[in-house]
Amino acid sequence: MDLQFIFELVGTYFFAVSGALAVHDREHDVFGAGFTGFITAIGGGTLRDVLLDSYPLVWIDDVSYLYAIFAGILTAILFFKIMSKLRKTLFLFDTLGIALFSVLGAEKALSLGVRPEIAAMMGMFSAVMGGVIRDMLCNATPILLKKEVYATACLSGAILVIVLQNLGVERNVNLILSFLLVVTIRLIAVRFKLSLPQLDWKK
Amino acid sequence: MDLQFIFELVGTYFFAVSGALAVHDREHDVFGAGFTGFITAIGGGTLRDVLLDSYPLVWIDDVSYLYAIFAGILTAILFFKIMSKLRKTLFLFDTLGIALFSVLGAEKALSLGVRPEIAAMMGMFSAVMGGVIRDMLCNATPILLKKEVYATACLSGAILVIVLQNLGVERNVNLILSFLLVVTIRLIAVRFKLSLPQLDWKK
Amino acid sequence: MDLQFIFELVGTYFFAVSGALAVHDREHDVFGAGFTGFITAIGGGTLRDVLLDSYPLVWIDDVSYLYAIFAGILTAILFFKIMSKLRKTLFLFDTLGIALFSVLGAEKALSLGVRPEIAAMMGMFSAVMGGVIRDMLCNATPILLKKEVYATACLSGAILVIVLQNLGVERNVNLILSFLLVVTIRLIAVRFKLSLPQLDWKK
Repeated sequence: MDLQFIFELVGTYFFAVSGALAVHDREHDVFGAGFTGFITAIGGGTLRDVLLDSYPLVWIDDVSYLYAIFAGILTAILFFKIMSKLRKTLFLFDTLGIALFSVLGAEKALSLGVRPEIAAMMGMFSAVMGGVIRDMLCNATPILLKKEVYATACLSGAILVIVLQNLGVERNVNLILSFLLVVTIRLIAVRFKLSLPQLDWKK
Repeated sequence: MDLQFIFELVGTYFFAVSGALAVHDREHDVFGAGFTGFITAIGGGTLRDVLLDSYPLVWIDDVSYLYAIFAGILTAILFFKIMSKLRKTLFLFDTLGIALFSVLGAEKALSLGVRPEIAAMMGMFSAVMGGVIRDMLCNATPILLKKEVYATACLSGAILVIVLQNLGVERNVNLILSFLLVVTIRLIAVRFKLSLPQLDWKK
Repeated sequence: MDLQFIFELVGTYFFAVSGALAVHDREHDVFGAGFTGFITAIGGGTLRDVLLDSYPLVWIDDVSYLYAIFAGILTAILFFKIMSKLRKTLFLFDTLGIALFSVLGAEKALSLGVRPEIAAMMGMFSAVMGGVIRDMLCNATPILLKKEVYATACLSGAILVIVLQNLGVERNVNLILSFLLVVTIRLIAVRFKLSLPQLDWKK
């Protein structure tokens, strides 16, 4: 349990870093960077919990998350020049973050008693909606609508965690396998430039 | 009651179709189409229920809605070429959808004990906010802000359903009359290109 | 208490006016102006209360707020030509509005039992998120992300109200001092064109 808490704080930290850095090609100041970092970090889980009526919200109940976010924002602001060169590192952090949030998000939804279809969707939401809200805020087309394997990877991991739980697989084994599925799909998709077919109206 | 449930599923299905097709002039793939279809279908009712603290959300409680949405998205993806030529059909579906959701949304809000002014607004929200959120997501100016008769028609139907209920009109008669009011206003406005005055700052 | 209620209605009215006028350089009609006025006026407080699970929402429970908003929208529509020339007046109204909402928002959050860090953030949210949602709706980059002293002023006032309450300062004195802090920071920042450093990736 303690280990999960630490993982969640680390995931929140990485989401805040990547969110704060996401504004780099816009005219934002340090406050804007902090604001988008915050939204990215808490957006997905908050939407999930509001939809499921699960109160108090995690980051409101336990202020540790807020400090993990502040640390992430500070890291992004202090080291943004170095970090802008570490695109691969950032990509990895983001991938680990969405994998973690998909799996834990689906498990949490399931524990709140919703049906598996809804839980899978909530797992995906936990991982991707922070970034979607951030992109809406920054007036950018959400990454989700352009690089579908991003969300598809999250959905796959969320489905696996539910299937394995129903099969009675031990929790830690389940979480690790589902986590690895998300990471693997994402890495393979990016490595081989895979993508789902586009809807092309001009054909 | 059964009839209402079927109507709601059909309305949800049509909203999902029109939402998924709404992305046709953007660079979205099939996942993006599904995502916007989903948001369009559940957005308005979800916002209404979150604002009114009415849990569990309809589509989380009864998974039938989710399958109606999946069917709508699938229809849009499989037949998008044909459907792109059926603009008048789509327009009709959308009109029937917003009429249905305005009327049922206002009735639901009223049954939750809010004041009539709020219930009328919630009826309109049920019908139009899914599309507004979809447009925010796709970085488009919401239709609501440009073609006001769209939302005005919804608001009119929502007000009528409340007035007739207070006058003691039988429920089915009320729902049908209010539904027809929305459809009629919308069709007349589009047929005769009616619109509310613009705020023109350059005059 | 009565005085606070009147202040809140006046603040809501001014937010509705400034929100309805915010669309002046876009192709919105009168309904669009009303819609953005409404969102601007209720957005911040609604987001705060949904995040804190504080129901019923203030404007749903007491319909006076709705009429204050209608009055604000009507004012904006009827007098928009005159008002467009009164930019300084509008700026002052907006400043008074965000100062009021920051202070009262932080106090309300604190009374709901959240930690001071969260309460300060909720105070800022109450003041600025209505405008942020409005800007997302209108496809504009939120003012928040460009003129950081806007939100920083709100956050300062929200923090002061919490600090003074913990020091046992009498409530009215506390509210007035914190209110004045927001107004002062905002006026000084605009007068001397102060701003936080930008994150410049091109250096």
